[in-house]
Amino acid sequence: MHPTVLTAGQKSRMHHLTRFTHHRLLILPIDQGLEHGPEDFLPHPHSWDTHHAYRLAHATPCSAVAVHIGLAEKHQWHHPDVPLILKLNGKTRIPQNVPPFAALTAQVEDALRLNAQAVGYTLYVGSARQDEDFRQFEQVRAEAHRYGLPVIMWAYPRGEHVDRQGGPNDPRMVQYAARVAQELGADIVKVNVPNADPEHLQEHLHTILLAAGPTKVVFAGGELGEANQVLQTARTVLQAGASGLMFGRNLWQRPFEEALNVSEHLLHLLRDV
Amino acid sequence: MHPTVLTAGQKSRMHHLTRFTHHRLLILPIDQGLEHGPEDFLPHPHSWDTHHAYRLAHATPCSAVAVHIGLAEKHQWHHPDVPLILKLNGKTRIPQNVPPFAALTAQVEDALRLNAQAVGYTLYVGSARQDEDFRQFEQVRAEAHRYGLPVIMWAYPRGEHVDRQGGPNDPRMVQYAARVAQELGADIVKVNVPNADPEHLQEHLHTILLAAGPTKVVFAGGELGEANQVLQTARTVLQAGASGLMFGRNLWQRPFEEALNVSEHLLHLLRDV
Amino acid sequence: MHPTVLTAGQKSRMHHLTRFTHHRLLILPIDQGLEHGPEDFLPHPHSWDTHHAYRLAHATPCSAVAVHIGLAEKHQWHHPDVPLILKLNGKTRIPQNVPPFAALTAQVEDALRLNAQAVGYTLYVGSARQDEDFRQFEQVRAEAHRYGLPVIMWAYPRGEHVDRQGGPNDPRMVQYAARVAQELGADIVKVNVPNADPEHLQEHLHTILLAAGPTKVVFAGGELGEANQVLQTARTVLQAGASGLMFGRNLWQRPFEEALNVSEHLLHLLRDV
Amino acid sequence: MHPTVLTAGQKSRMHHLTRFTHHRLLILPIDQGLEHGPEDFLPHPHSWDTHHAYRLAHATPCSAVAVHIGLAEKHQWHHPDVPLILKLNGKTRIPQNVPPFAALTAQVEDALRLNAQAVGYTLYVGSARQDEDFRQFEQVRAEAHRYGLPVIMWAYPRGEHVDRQGGPNDPRMVQYAARVAQELGADIVKVNVPNADPEHLQEHLHTILLAAGPTKVVFAGGELGEANQVLQTARTVLQAGASGLMFGRNLWQRPFEEALNVSEHLLHLLRDV
Amino acid sequence: MHPTVLTAGQKSRMHHLTRFTHHRLLILPIDQGLEHGPEDFLPHPHSWDTHHAYRLAHATPCSAVAVHIGLAEKHQWHHPDVPLILKLNGKTRIPQNVPPFAALTAQVEDALRLNAQAVGYTLYVGSARQDEDFRQFEQVRAEAHRYGLPVIMWAYPRGEHVDRQGGPNDPRMVQYAARVAQELGADIVKVNVPNADPEHLQEHLHTILLAAGPTKVVFAGGELGEANQVLQTARTVLQAGASGLMFGRNLWQRPFEEALNVSEHLLHLLRDV
Repeated sequence: MHPTVLTAGQKSRMHHLTRFTHHRLLILPIDQGLEHGPEDFLPHPHSWDTHHAYRLAHATPCSAVAVHIGLAEKHQWHHPDVPLILKLNGKTRIPQNVPPFAALTAQVEDALRLNAQAVGYTLYVGSARQDEDFRQFEQVRAEAHRYGLPVIMWAYPRGEHVDRQGGPNDPRMVQYAARVAQELGADIVKVNVPNADPEHLQEHLHTILLAAGPTKVVFAGGELGEANQVLQTARTVLQAGASGLMFGRNLWQRPFEEALNVSEHLLHLLRDV
Repeated sequence: MHPTVLTAGQKSRMHHLTRFTHHRLLILPIDQGLEHGPEDFLPHPHSWDTHHAYRLAHATPCSAVAVHIGLAEKHQWHHPDVPLILKLNGKTRIPQNVPPFAALTAQVEDALRLNAQAVGYTLYVGSARQDEDFRQFEQVRAEAHRYGLPVIMWAYPRGEHVDRQGGPNDPRMVQYAARVAQELGADIVKVNVPNADPEHLQEHLHTILLAAGPTKVVFAGGELGEANQVLQTARTVLQAGASGLMFGRNLWQRPFEEALNVSEHLLHLLRDV
Repeated sequence: MHPTVLTAGQKSRMHHLTRFTHHRLLILPIDQGLEHGPEDFLPHPHSWDTHHAYRLAHATPCSAVAVHIGLAEKHQWHHPDVPLILKLNGKTRIPQNVPPFAALTAQVEDALRLNAQAVGYTLYVGSARQDEDFRQFEQVRAEAHRYGLPVIMWAYPRGEHVDRQGGPNDPRMVQYAARVAQELGADIVKVNVPNADPEHLQEHLHTILLAAGPTKVVFAGGELGEANQVLQTARTVLQAGASGLMFGRNLWQRPFEEALNVSEHLLHLLRDV
Repeated sequence: MHPTVLTAGQKSRMHHLTRFTHHRLLILPIDQGLEHGPEDFLPHPHSWDTHHAYRLAHATPCSAVAVHIGLAEKHQWHHPDVPLILKLNGKTRIPQNVPPFAALTAQVEDALRLNAQAVGYTLYVGSARQDEDFRQFEQVRAEAHRYGLPVIMWAYPRGEHVDRQGGPNDPRMVQYAARVAQELGADIVKVNVPNADPEHLQEHLHTILLAAGPTKVVFAGGELGEANQVLQTARTVLQAGASGLMFGRNLWQRPFEEALNVSEHLLHLLRDV
Repeated sequence: MHPTVLTAGQKSRMHHLTRFTHHRLLILPIDQGLEHGPEDFLPHPHSWDTHHAYRLAHATPCSAVAVHIGLAEKHQWHHPDVPLILKLNGKTRIPQNVPPFAALTAQVEDALRLNAQAVGYTLYVGSARQDEDFRQFEQVRAEAHRYGLPVIMWAYPRGEHVDRQGGPNDPRMVQYAARVAQELGADIVKVNVPNADPEHLQEHLHTILLAAGPTKVVFAGGELGEANQVLQTARTVLQAGASGLMFGRNLWQRPFEEALNVSEHLLHLLRDV
């Protein structure tokens, strides 16, 4: 994002999000308790208490945690040093036969009150309820920008067309999601690493970054993976020009010391790649 | 809930709710007339007149009654000594073919006007209308917290996925409900005691309390049961660390003296366990 | 309704509604033109002109007429002596395949502007659209009470469950409707006389009145019936403790003098039973 | 409509609408471009340019044109002498499988800004979306009356019940539509001439006028017909006591001189019948 | 559009849109990234970076670009010389089984803040969700005109009726779309060139322009075509009296020099035809 395009408030908050992470983003999402439910936590007993993830955020110079209103209100008081991205909408994994749509769980006013540095919004590109999503995002985008808050879109392709095209991680679908984020006015977009064989991955990442245009792109870490493999993917996306990483399960599902070790490596990649 | 996370208004009201109940919660819900209908009352003629339940609330140092707007407006005038939790949404038992969703029956403004110490909200985790529920809860939560009112979520798992997983009282489903309450910003969550064989119950209760995090957990008394059995369950959940109990039918479906006897035992448990 | 529970405005208006009817209610509804359509009028040519019903209201010391906004705006100017209950929602008889729901036809502001003494609202207990009904009623109830207007709920059981239970006039369904009116904050509820053999009717009426609690109960006159039979039913419900009667078709479908004769008998019952 | 029931603003505007048309209404609707589409125009090349209809309105002392916002904004500037009824809702003929409902195309504020003398609203009595229609009309009615604007309802019976009863022009269905207009607070209602054999037509017209009560009734001209036949029908409805006529296609689908000739005859009927 | 019908603000902004394009419109839409997705871009690598289209807009004296909020906020800062039409609603190509409806992606307030010269709105004439579209457009139209912003409607026939009639480009369907734009108050309407054999095209274009009345008509360039053919079509519609052209893919899908060549020819046609 060309810096002059930001308003003073957005620029100041982007500075706070990136100053300890080498001017790139390393975001630690802790919203899986809502989005995925107990199954993300039960196999990892050290993760049952949310303090585990917060201690990680405290020990690592990450950009921010990304959490819903409940965690923001009840945990941030104890961690004023951990920058906050307030996730403004969400859903659980379990309603059936409903096209995906994440309803508001908080408002821009909450983000301002809690001194969040940015707001997060999940949009399901291609969902049969996409029109509701557009309207809801439009209101969040307009109000957040009125107060100088950067807007981060979690852009997920979904729906029948997506499934026929190779699924949510098909390169063209991820491109489309990145473009939608640019068109609708997101400052930052989080997308998944596309499915691609290694020799074509750089090419696909390139088109995804072009599809996002001046909107910064951060790639998701996704499910817990083997550390070396995960770091290799992080290196690849940063080489392609990504603005950062959003790693949740690949950090807080690990025991504390192991997670700290991974996050340290990620920081080196942010600095060096 | 770590006390410092509460605002002055929330802390003051939590104090009013717990000062005569040994710093724990003993809530007497009288909302079954709306939620369940005549079938909860017909077999118990002493319960036909709502004064029966209110007399119990008056005679027992319970935390509060939890009632809908009609009872709050028309009965509380006669019982200024009984603290009030205003239930803000509800439904009857009888609409067919509609995914569960409890519409607003009162507003936060009503709660303030009637000097309620907290507001109650029923959320159906997993319902096909969960998105409407999230939006409605979000507005209640934001407005209640703006005025320092604690928010109590009745968190009930519902829907096809829940039924396939073992039903609303499956331990993982209750965990998920508790987590959703934490994520969405409830101060207190009411959940059911999970289905579990006795030797695993403590373990499941432990994960439920961790899933709720700083959100206080109160367990429902449920259907009228044999007194000893009911008290044993209460003892178990309090041993696990629950913040309190919500007992309705197990109190007001009993004759007055018998109910008073049960509530006295519950108070002893709140003090001693 | 215990008088002290009323605000000054509600108490004053209840006084106006009952001062000429022996402190009970005798309400003359003229909303069947909307709700039922021409079929209620065509067989009774004297009823084709709305002046017939208004002349009756003028000649009888009834509590009030209950009409929709159109009649209130266009007829009340000529009858400033007839107290007004403004019906705030309604529907016609003819939409097909839509679960019952009565949309707003006027606002509380209209009621205040036209000096109505109360507002009326139809709620379909058990309808698949009950949640919309609850929300709409909630807003009416809150605004009406803010301005000291008593709220009268026409509480009609509807839907598949109701049909399986014996229909809208099954005693338990009428009980449920009365209880919903109490729970949601109605000051007065209009219900139908339940289906019951004569020796059990008093018992069922008793449970209905208890289900309504401090909410006053008025019983509907229903379809045009033989005068003696109608008066006998009125006597029965008043003996059970009803707060009054709502008689429309049993008055205005009769020729003027005959209707006057019936209403005079009803007034005697209100005074003497 | 008894004049004293009108507010000063409504009375003044009704005067403007009727002063050159013998205190009755002769309304020229030009909304068929939206409602019916090209098929109303293609067979009549002189009608392709909207100026044709406006020139007619200019040459004939009609009460007003009834048009949507686009024509009002773009044509009235050239015809300040032609009074305006702003149609506030509408639809095209072509959406499929949607119960009829006419969405707002303009607001009462537009009517005031453009110096309209009244507003028009189409309501589909019996449509499965009737509840939305009621709510939308309620808001228009309330706001229009707040500013002294008369409200004209185009009342059209629709839906399965209507079809089973003999269709939209069945006398009982037209009666019902007229009554709904009275109940909901319309000042004027436009209905179709009912289907009836000549010897019963007067009788049916009489019941329709009674069903409308103090709401003035204007009858639609409908499809282009043979001039003598059309004038005969106009004479019949005026004899029955109608307050006026709404003639669109029977005027502007004719060549200019022929249309002028018909409108002149209509004016004579308004004066003489 | 007769100039006197415009307000001062609309007239001033229309002047800005047409002063370098011979008092006609040559609009360059860059909204296909949202509306069509990657498939419009992947075969044309020079188009992957949005700067390509903006450079074209900068090099050609076009009336304006038409873009969504994201491009407007992030690209216009670098191109203050390129006039802006802010597209206010849109959708992606991929949701399934949803009748077409384009949700808001920005507000009139955004258009004012960004100094847009007009706002754009896509309306699907005939869609089963047409009523939502009407309401949404109504609000945009009212607010835009309040601030003197011209409103451009992208008017697309859609739905079952349209498909049975010969599809969205059937001449009668395009006429209907143009008429709807006039009726609803658009200042400019964009329609497709209708399907017609060459000898009847002028006649059909004539009826489309009459259907639009004082609303200016611009014709879409559509899919990338052979340059001579495209220019021939442009000449034809301008000869018929069109107010301008909207060419997107036929410009930015071409390499820069080739596109510049086409746009130069288009400008000559605007001047000379």
